[in-house]
Amino acid sequence: MHVNTEEIIIQGSPGSPGISFGPVHVMARGFSAPDVYEIRDDQVEREQERFEKALEITKEQLDQLRVHIENLSGEEEGKIFDAHLMVLEDKTLLKRVSHAISERRQNAEYAFYAVMQTFLEAMRRVNDSYLRERAADIDDVCQRVLRNFTQDATSPASDRPDHQHILVAYDLSPSDTASIDRNHVLGFATEQGSVNSHTAILARSLGIPAIVGLEGAVIDITTLSGGILDGYNGTLILNPSVETIKKYQEKSLRKKQAQKELETLREKDTATSDGHRITLSANIEFTNELPQVAQSGAEGVGLFRTEFYLLNGGEMPDEHQQEKVYTEVAKAMNPHLTIVRTLDAGGDKISAEPLSSPEPNPFLGWRGVRVSLTRTALFKEQLRGVLRASTAGKLGVMFPMISGIAEVLAAKELLKESMDELHREGVPFDENIQVGVMIEIPSAAVMADEIAKEVDFLSIGTNDLIQYTVAVDRVNPYVANLYKPTHPAVFRLMDMTVRAAKDNGIWTGVCGEMAAQLLLTPLLVGLGVDELSVGPHMVPSIKKAVRSLSQAECAEMMQQVLKMRTSPDIAEISKNMAYRHYPELID
Amino acid sequence: MHVNTEEIIIQGSPGSPGISFGPVHVMARGFSAPDVYEIRDDQVEREQERFEKALEITKEQLDQLRVHIENLSGEEEGKIFDAHLMVLEDKTLLKRVSHAISERRQNAEYAFYAVMQTFLEAMRRVNDSYLRERAADIDDVCQRVLRNFTQDATSPASDRPDHQHILVAYDLSPSDTASIDRNHVLGFATEQGSVNSHTAILARSLGIPAIVGLEGAVIDITTLSGGILDGYNGTLILNPSVETIKKYQEKSLRKKQAQKELETLREKDTATSDGHRITLSANIEFTNELPQVAQSGAEGVGLFRTEFYLLNGGEMPDEHQQEKVYTEVAKAMNPHLTIVRTLDAGGDKISAEPLSSPEPNPFLGWRGVRVSLTRTALFKEQLRGVLRASTAGKLGVMFPMISGIAEVLAAKELLKESMDELHREGVPFDENIQVGVMIEIPSAAVMADEIAKEVDFLSIGTNDLIQYTVAVDRVNPYVANLYKPTHPAVFRLMDMTVRAAKDNGIWTGVCGEMAAQLLLTPLLVGLGVDELSVGPHMVPSIKKAVRSLSQAECAEMMQQVLKMRTSPDIAEISKNMAYRHYPELID
Repeated sequence: MHVNTEEIIIQGSPGSPGISFGPVHVMARGFSAPDVYEIRDDQVEREQERFEKALEITKEQLDQLRVHIENLSGEEEGKIFDAHLMVLEDKTLLKRVSHAISERRQNAEYAFYAVMQTFLEAMRRVNDSYLRERAADIDDVCQRVLRNFTQDATSPASDRPDHQHILVAYDLSPSDTASIDRNHVLGFATEQGSVNSHTAILARSLGIPAIVGLEGAVIDITTLSGGILDGYNGTLILNPSVETIKKYQEKSLRKKQAQKELETLREKDTATSDGHRITLSANIEFTNELPQVAQSGAEGVGLFRTEFYLLNGGEMPDEHQQEKVYTEVAKAMNPHLTIVRTLDAGGDKISAEPLSSPEPNPFLGWRGVRVSLTRTALFKEQLRGVLRASTAGKLGVMFPMISGIAEVLAAKELLKESMDELHREGVPFDENIQVGVMIEIPSAAVMADEIAKEVDFLSIGTNDLIQYTVAVDRVNPYVANLYKPTHPAVFRLMDMTVRAAKDNGIWTGVCGEMAAQLLLTPLLVGLGVDELSVGPHMVPSIKKAVRSLSQAECAEMMQQVLKMRTSPDIAEISKNMAYRHYPELID
Repeated sequence: MHVNTEEIIIQGSPGSPGISFGPVHVMARGFSAPDVYEIRDDQVEREQERFEKALEITKEQLDQLRVHIENLSGEEEGKIFDAHLMVLEDKTLLKRVSHAISERRQNAEYAFYAVMQTFLEAMRRVNDSYLRERAADIDDVCQRVLRNFTQDATSPASDRPDHQHILVAYDLSPSDTASIDRNHVLGFATEQGSVNSHTAILARSLGIPAIVGLEGAVIDITTLSGGILDGYNGTLILNPSVETIKKYQEKSLRKKQAQKELETLREKDTATSDGHRITLSANIEFTNELPQVAQSGAEGVGLFRTEFYLLNGGEMPDEHQQEKVYTEVAKAMNPHLTIVRTLDAGGDKISAEPLSSPEPNPFLGWRGVRVSLTRTALFKEQLRGVLRASTAGKLGVMFPMISGIAEVLAAKELLKESMDELHREGVPFDENIQVGVMIEIPSAAVMADEIAKEVDFLSIGTNDLIQYTVAVDRVNPYVANLYKPTHPAVFRLMDMTVRAAKDNGIWTGVCGEMAAQLLLTPLLVGLGVDELSVGPHMVPSIKKAVRSLSQAECAEMMQQVLKMRTSPDIAEISKNMAYRHYPELID
């Protein structure tokens, strides 16, 4: 195997904190791809030949198939294979493959696969049945060609690792990320994604070090001997020198020791230095995160995301299957509260169902409770599942993407219907189950005083609230710089929300990304929120931060913040407070 | 020509008010399409034959071409024609054409064109150079086939009208709409678009009766003898009976008489019955709307949209060319104020430049002042153009898509730079030119108190403000029902805006669609806005409405509105007030 020995540093964005050391494995798009490896100069010719050979065998097979079909069904039917053969003779595509072998030094299987995949993906994206059929045909041929690559004795060995490694991929869907084998994958880096993308959020919640936005990584990197992935600052180092390895080992150790110190706080209260209690809970998506939650010292689950669980498989689980899962979480968290967020499909998350036409602006589209209120049978299935589980511990239910009082009342009405049904069926449930809503749309924040009269709690989803308040898609690179968590308007809306809740004797939580940002904790404490819900791995540091702060001091600062004009001003004042009280947590 | 005599009523959404009577002409997608007409049962076979004949001729031509190329360049190069020939032999496509002829009774040219167009559009949408090249090839073949249709004596005559007609189209881009020949097009109906789409807004501003969202229209309708387009309620009637024609003539007359009466108000003040003055101005996009503005009695231009003017051609006009246009408007409006909105590219409007990757949520993307602040040279070109024209009358300049104070200061800084430059160059300009911003992003409304300190006026863009406040894309059919102009949060934000302006001694206008909605005028009067800017055709009725209302009564109503919980409540109270004071304007 060709081993490149030069140290290469590739900069991406931090996706999830942590440092990993290990061999780098590059994964093609999708798990079924052939292995990719770098070939030597003297192997180029042989790879070209292997490619031509595979094509030749495939053509012969197709020709034989054609004759066979023509004999059976006539000349017309045999013509289908002409289209297949044409793809194998298409000069543009063949040139691309040849180029990938000679210039990018990719092995023939992978070069062919990557070219065809790009082409197929393009065809599949199109909403035209003719093109989609053709794509399926071409995919067939592609698979056939791949099967026809001869694995002679001289071809380089496959490199799919069954050992621990750093994974580099073009992109990982949330479902890819979730199904990563954590025993083997030490960390991952993707070309796509941003720090606020769902995949990065998931990586943080799973505690896997990750880098996102690593441009050109998959094309430029072939498998190398070793690497370091620094998820704290988004750096991937290939072929690190002994010196570099030592430096990063020290950094990793330092970070881990700090983590250990934090763990001593596990049994301690989350309260400010002047005695203001805050409930610190965890955001989770999978039941296998529960041990991590328990270990983190979180006082319950402030956000149990149900999209992946409900929509990842084929059919949606029914109320009894859901009951089982919610029961498992409720029991594990007891006596603490677990808040189940009802299906938040759409937007940048999994779709509830295929739409007949793509939405031009999915973030402003059919998502969250909007889906639930039009698919009421599915919604009630979930509500009944939650209610059935509500005797196993302390459960709450929360509706996402509420834009006004009408949706709150409609959702509550369906909850009441579900309760009445269970009542008639003699199924016990917690009649006083806590009901809350996400405040993540500006209109909901503006109307918080009215909404607060109808619910038991408000939970601020900062990611969306910021996005809609300043009209910026946080994953759009053209405007991502305008996505400012410290925008003064965001704090005014959050302040309106917290005050509305207090006036109505209910509590407010924050379950968006902002809750996990140590530099912004003084602002949330200053607003007077009652709960913070963060990824389990962030619980210890946020607890330490809260314990270091004075609520009175933060509230005073907030009075100034509400008069500030720009986001740098607000970021600055909060950062200063954070550095004054817990410099050791920030790096 | 086949004349269908049954009266058919197709219901769409009202796009632009007015009633048109005339022959219906169906336009294919794009202006270069072949004519479409309905064929008789006994013509089906002949059309199928014409189609086969055209294919045959084309194949022969391509075969000859292939031989020619092969002789010149060798066998390989001739193969390009195989791909062309394959398209002409593709069974899926051929079946679709045949089906369109026999089932939809479309003439052969159009049937072929429409099938290929759908296919090509799908291919072109894909961001893959290989597919795009293939699309160009297929387009070539398609054009060739169309040229090969024989126009024998028995084929139906072409029907492209050089007379006045009602135009039915799949879709009209804003630029299509703008370039409609108003001498020939009496009204138009499109399958695509919604009442809030840019095309509908443009139709209203041009005063062309229009219907949008007329599902299946282009496919189901062929050219017919006559029709009625009612843009008041979105109805298209084909082959109207004499009775129906009479009924609609009466309605049209009634509406026109009401309009005449309104015109007597032209010289009158826009003031409420209790003497509260409001400036009523016009929204325009083209200088050829100026006569209409003058006739309407508008007191100036509250919104001069510059997207179409700046981006419709190839190169953007320079500051001198822009100066000419702004001067023309300023002179025509003098002594009234003309407010030039700086380039509001992106979103659902024309793009400023091709983006390297499409935005997943263009409404939350690179648009408005965000473009201007990153393309400062183009921005200053426009600012200098406005400044140069500012001595010709009374000009104001307004920045769109402001999300906070930082953008206001940055835009003002560039304006100051432009002023300093012109100063050094000895070019005279109005040093006190009014500078304002659009309030159309929630954060801008929330921060209006600070923004008001930096500008001379605020102009509320209701369309976007509603859209972002409730997080609903108004043109997305899945959620369009959640786009509520009377959402209570919208009025709270507008109230914050108006109060912030008053506290800082500046004025507030409303230039969004809401300003033109007669049922909502009591709300805007109640808020105490100082200016309303509407399409020229709406100026007379809005003036009448304002003159019929009492400001004190509306303000009292607004106090109730600000305590209301749902949009139907607010819509209801305003509607009642409107019916009480100007029932004759509403229909």
